[in-house]
Amino acid sequence: MGESVDVVVVGAGIAGLVAARDLARSGAEVLVLEARDRVGGRLLNDELPGGAPIEVGGQWVGPGQQHVLALIDDLGLKTFPTYTAGRHIAELGTARSVYTGRIPKLNPLALADVAQIQWRLDRVARRVAAAEPWLADRAGVLDAQTFATWLRRTAHTSAGRSFLQLITEAVFSAEPEDMSALWAAYYVGAAGGLDALINTAGGAQQDRVVGGSQTIALALAQELGDRVVLETVVTDVEWDVSGVRVVAGGTTVRARRAVIAVPPPLAARVRFTPGLPGDRDQLVQRMPMGRVIKVNVAYDEPFWREAGLSGQANSDHRPLGTVFDNTPLDGSPGVLVGFLEGRHADRGARLDLTDRRAQVIDDLAGYFGPRARNPIAYIERDWAEEEFSRGCYGAFTTPGTLTRFGPALRTPIGPLHWAGTETATRWAGYMDGAAESGHRAAREVAPALRRSGV
Amino acid sequence: MGESVDVVVVGAGIAGLVAARDLARSGAEVLVLEARDRVGGRLLNDELPGGAPIEVGGQWVGPGQQHVLALIDDLGLKTFPTYTAGRHIAELGTARSVYTGRIPKLNPLALADVAQIQWRLDRVARRVAAAEPWLADRAGVLDAQTFATWLRRTAHTSAGRSFLQLITEAVFSAEPEDMSALWAAYYVGAAGGLDALINTAGGAQQDRVVGGSQTIALALAQELGDRVVLETVVTDVEWDVSGVRVVAGGTTVRARRAVIAVPPPLAARVRFTPGLPGDRDQLVQRMPMGRVIKVNVAYDEPFWREAGLSGQANSDHRPLGTVFDNTPLDGSPGVLVGFLEGRHADRGARLDLTDRRAQVIDDLAGYFGPRARNPIAYIERDWAEEEFSRGCYGAFTTPGTLTRFGPALRTPIGPLHWAGTETATRWAGYMDGAAESGHRAAREVAPALRRSGV
Repeated sequence: MGESVDVVVVGAGIAGLVAARDLARSGAEVLVLEARDRVGGRLLNDELPGGAPIEVGGQWVGPGQQHVLALIDDLGLKTFPTYTAGRHIAELGTARSVYTGRIPKLNPLALADVAQIQWRLDRVARRVAAAEPWLADRAGVLDAQTFATWLRRTAHTSAGRSFLQLITEAVFSAEPEDMSALWAAYYVGAAGGLDALINTAGGAQQDRVVGGSQTIALALAQELGDRVVLETVVTDVEWDVSGVRVVAGGTTVRARRAVIAVPPPLAARVRFTPGLPGDRDQLVQRMPMGRVIKVNVAYDEPFWREAGLSGQANSDHRPLGTVFDNTPLDGSPGVLVGFLEGRHADRGARLDLTDRRAQVIDDLAGYFGPRARNPIAYIERDWAEEEFSRGCYGAFTTPGTLTRFGPALRTPIGPLHWAGTETATRWAGYMDGAAESGHRAAREVAPALRRSGV
Repeated sequence: MGESVDVVVVGAGIAGLVAARDLARSGAEVLVLEARDRVGGRLLNDELPGGAPIEVGGQWVGPGQQHVLALIDDLGLKTFPTYTAGRHIAELGTARSVYTGRIPKLNPLALADVAQIQWRLDRVARRVAAAEPWLADRAGVLDAQTFATWLRRTAHTSAGRSFLQLITEAVFSAEPEDMSALWAAYYVGAAGGLDALINTAGGAQQDRVVGGSQTIALALAQELGDRVVLETVVTDVEWDVSGVRVVAGGTTVRARRAVIAVPPPLAARVRFTPGLPGDRDQLVQRMPMGRVIKVNVAYDEPFWREAGLSGQANSDHRPLGTVFDNTPLDGSPGVLVGFLEGRHADRGARLDLTDRRAQVIDDLAGYFGPRARNPIAYIERDWAEEEFSRGCYGAFTTPGTLTRFGPALRTPIGPLHWAGTETATRWAGYMDGAAESGHRAAREVAPALRRSGV
C-alpha cells in the first residue's frame, strides 16, 4: 500500500466498521485494517449440519439496545425471538426447579435473598452515572473492593451468593472476584438494570439476527468494499499532532486520524511511538478480558421442546452453567448453546477436546435427559485462545482502575481515538456498545477533518 | 544477524543477564537481546552535580537477599549502609513525630492498631507458601478480595488504616485496592515479613551499592561482552518444540530455547506464534505494573544531618510520602530521594515538570525546613512513561489472578522459559528476586541443552 487516507481504523469489529462507515458517508477517505482473515471481531458465524449459520461468538440483541437495533434495521437485516416457550430449568445446590416465568421455584429464603441482592445492585447501579462512573458518589468505596466482596457483604445466604456468582459468570464470563464492584455496578447500570442483562424476553437475550449476527459486520464491510483490508496485523502506530503512520507488516498507511477499535488488552499490544502517556498505558494493563468457551450442540430436532422445555437451563454447580435454545428459525436442526465461563472455562481449556466434549454432553444430559447424548454436531469456540480477541465477552476493570484511570478509556490522544464496546456508555460489552462507540469515535474525528479541509 | 545460538534471552535486566551468564558459563552459546540502548532494566544510574552516580531506579539491598548479595560479591562490587543516624520524621494526619528507632511517637491507639495489623499480616503471610501461594490454605478467600478490603476488616482505627496505606504505597508503588490480598500476603511472606520490607537497617533498604546499583548489570554485561545486543526490540517469537525464531526489527535469531526476562505486561506485548495458551495470556493481562516517580534532590551538603535528622521521612498525606537520605558515601553532595507512588504518581504525572518539582520541594521543605528549598539538582524518573518498563517497582496480581492463573507465572511453554523478578519465589519485585529467577531459568534450560548435545 503505502497509502494516505483521512482516517485509518484498526479493527473490523462492529465498532471499527461503524466508525468507518459513518466517516465514509461524511465524505472522508477511510481505510480499515483487520488482523484476521475476516471481519466481525467477537462475532463469527459457523455452519450447522445442513448449512444453516450458527454463531460461535456474540449473538443476541434486546430492547433498549438502540444503536445495534437501528444498525440492523438500517442494513435491512431482520431479527427473530429467542425460543422461550415452555419451562426453564434451574439447579441451585441440590435443588432443581423446572419452572415458567422469571423465577425458579427454589428455596424461598434463597429467592428472597436473590431479590434483595438484585434490588441493592440495581440501586447502586443507578447511582453510578454510566458515562463517567469514576465520578459517582461512593465510586472510590466501590472501586476499592471486588464484586465478590460486595456480594459477600450483601448476600444473607450462601445460596443467594451462589446464584449471583452464576449470574456474574453468565453476564461477564468472569468471576465476582476478578472485577471491581464499581465495574459490575457500572455495567449493570449501563444496561438499565440486572433484569435487562439476564432476561431472555424483555432482556439482552431476547432476539437473534436472521442469518447470524456476523451478517451485521459482513453487511457493513460490503458497504465499505475495498476500504476494508484483511490479514493486516497492525504492530506500530507512529503519531504526532498532524497525524499517524500505521505499520502492518511491510505495509504503511498514513492518515490524519486513527480510530483504534480493538479491545483494551490488545490495544496495549500495539507499539505507539511516541509511547502513550502513563495513564493510558496503566489503564490497558488493568482491563483483562473475560474468558468463555461457547459450545453449540446440534441434534436431529429440538427434542426438549416436545418435553415442554424451553431449552433454557442454569446451574450453580455444572461447568456448563448457562444454556439456551439456539435452534435456527425454521426449527431444524435442534441446537442447544451453552457456555463454560470464568473458572469453568479455565478448567475446560485444560481438558482435551474429547474430555471437554464429554463433560459438556454430560451436563446437557443432566439438564435435558439421555436424548442429549446423541448430538449430530458439536461446535465450540474458546475465545481466550483467539490471538485477536484473547477472551470474551468483553474486558472488565480490576479494582482501583476506573477511579484512577477511567478517563483514559475514551479521551483521544493527539490523532488517536478509541472505540470498541468497552468504551461505550451504555451496554458496554455488547454489540450495542460497540455500535455506540463507533458512532462516537466518528463524531470525534469528523470535525477535525473538516477543520483541515476534507 | 540471522544468527543461531543455543539460548536467546529477551531483556538485559538482572534476570536476563544472570540467566545468560549462568548459561554461558555452562558452555552454552547465548545471545541477550535488549530493547533499550543500555542494560539494567529497572536499574539505572544517573549523575549528580560533580559526577557521582545516583540511582533513578531500584537501588537497595538488604539482609536475606542471598541471591543479589552473592552476585554483588561475585562481581567484586561493594555495598555501604544507607545513612540512618539521627531522628526520622513521621506524619500521620495532623500528628508529627520526630523519633529514633523503629516506632514513631504517635497516637498510642494508632500505634497499637498498626502493631496488630502487622501481626496479622505477618501471620497470614507465613501461611501463604511462597513458591505456590495459590495452593495455600484460604488462598481463595484472600484472592477474592483486595488488600484494601483486608485492611479495612483488619484495622480498628482510620489512622492505622492510613498508615498501612502509606506502607503499601511505599512497598508496592500501588494502592491497597489495586492488588489481591493474596498477592500482598505472598509478597510480604516472600520477604520474610513486613519489617524486612520496610526497615532500613535490618531490612530491604539497609544497603546501597558502591557505584550505583546499575553497576551490577553493567558488570554482568561486561562479562557477557558481545553476547549482549542493545537497541533490539523483540516483537515476534515463533516457536515449536524444537526451538524458537526471535524477530527484532530486520533481525532474526534462532535458538533452541528462549528465556523471556521482561515484566509480565511487557511479555504480553511480544507476539508469539503460535499464540500462547489462554492461561498464560490471561495471566499477563492481569499483572499490571505499579506506578512511581522517583525523585533525587541534591543539595550542597546533607544539611538535615547537622540538625540531627536521618533524612528518613514518611507522611500519610503528602504526595512525597516516603523520603530517604541518598547522599553518596563520601557525603557530598547531600541527596534526598523521595517517591511519588500509586495515586500520587498519577497526579504527579499530570503536572508539568515545573509544578511537579515545586510540589516535591514543598514537601521536602515541609519535612526538613526551608533549606530544602535550595537544591542544586532535581533528578526525576517516571517509570510508567518508560516504554520498556511501563511502571515500577514491579507487577502485582489483581484479585482472582493467582488462584486462577498462578502456575502460568513460571511454567515453561515448549522452548519458552520465564524469568524476571515477578517470577521469583522470594523477594519478588526486588533485585534479589530478579537474580533468583535468572538462576532458576538457567537451571531449567541447561538440561534441555545437554540432552540435545551441547
